[in-house]
Amino acid sequence: MTKRAVVLLSGGLDSATVLAIAVERGYECHAISIDYGQKHSAELDAATRVAQFLGADSHRCIALPAGIFAGSALTDPGLDVPENGGEGLPITYVPARNTIFLSLALGCAEVLAAQSIFIGVNAVDYSGYPDCRPEFIDAFQKLALLATKQAVEGAPIVIEAPLIQLSKQQIIERGLALGVDYAMTTSCYRADELGRACGHCDACKLRAEGFRAAGVTDTTRYQYG
Amino acid sequence: MTKRAVVLLSGGLDSATVLAIAVERGYECHAISIDYGQKHSAELDAATRVAQFLGADSHRCIALPAGIFAGSALTDPGLDVPENGGEGLPITYVPARNTIFLSLALGCAEVLAAQSIFIGVNAVDYSGYPDCRPEFIDAFQKLALLATKQAVEGAPIVIEAPLIQLSKQQIIERGLALGVDYAMTTSCYRADELGRACGHCDACKLRAEGFRAAGVTDTTRYQYG
Repeated sequence: MTKRAVVLLSGGLDSATVLAIAVERGYECHAISIDYGQKHSAELDAATRVAQFLGADSHRCIALPAGIFAGSALTDPGLDVPENGGEGLPITYVPARNTIFLSLALGCAEVLAAQSIFIGVNAVDYSGYPDCRPEFIDAFQKLALLATKQAVEGAPIVIEAPLIQLSKQQIIERGLALGVDYAMTTSCYRADELGRACGHCDACKLRAEGFRAAGVTDTTRYQYG
Repeated sequence: MTKRAVVLLSGGLDSATVLAIAVERGYECHAISIDYGQKHSAELDAATRVAQFLGADSHRCIALPAGIFAGSALTDPGLDVPENGGEGLPITYVPARNTIFLSLALGCAEVLAAQSIFIGVNAVDYSGYPDCRPEFIDAFQKLALLATKQAVEGAPIVIEAPLIQLSKQQIIERGLALGVDYAMTTSCYRADELGRACGHCDACKLRAEGFRAAGVTDTTRYQYG
């Protein structure tokens, strides 16, 4: 029987690694990217390249109406992405984002009769978002066991978060071993339309530290220099 | 402090009753309806009328891309809505629908700084969908306690499902006492563009039995006669 998976693919480093892992495990992979009004389209362009390069069987972009995620620095033109997050949850937090992404993936998985959903959340080198923690993923798994016809009929959909306990260094090492070309990925919260990174936001810093720790040169292009 | 709620409003009998309950409890109510590719627009038209009549503070329709919910008789032009469901889960089941609806409501609730989400699920006189059961709602509540910034900061969003243990008769009696005009609502799975019901699908039957049990005349208009 074909093993089939829905893979949430943002176009960043983590989700590209997750797609490579799902492909390696022998899944027929259906990648989905969500356009939720990100300020830049570089992320979605990167997702398209990554899906093709890593051999996803399909790639679909789901557009959500603008404004659902108001109030985040990632979507609101009136809010700047800060260079230092400061105390508490950063302003780059997007309301209920991973809950909505996993829910849409759950619907797609059931339509495709997929067995698994892969998501690249990580709770080690991350920005502290509540919906990246292992207990959040566990709670979504419990929900999924009750929510679908597939589960009722004995074929529940499994949520796979293979990066959740890895450091950024370990994620990069894993991906390189699987042939991921990280030059295709975009991590920056404020990349320009060419996909060039700012070098200063939380996401850029976490990425740079990961490559440094792995002893590997990152070919990310930067906006300045 | 203003009590604020997001109310999932389909335009049917149950969600209209729920909106009336939330208004009675003193909430500032923000209704959302989801256009998920239903075959008919009568439901969404009904939601607009109901939101205005019952005094919702806002009403928003969120359109999801077509095809997410393929394979259901409620969305797929190639599948007929049956008059008798037969064994197992009916073909009118829509993959992960309430998971997706509650997730979108959770995002909207956090953007609005709302305390509650109201949903009109019912596990007594219903079609047997897995995502209408109390254990599903409980699991979503547990997820919501982990998923959001509001929860982390001590103001979790509460899922209210006030109809879940009521019979259709009790729901109708409750709504009539609160002034709901059920003539505005549409329950039928295959209503025509004028909102006239077929009289034969599961939803029509459950509705008619509810009014009969309550001893009240339903002013629903039918397509034939």
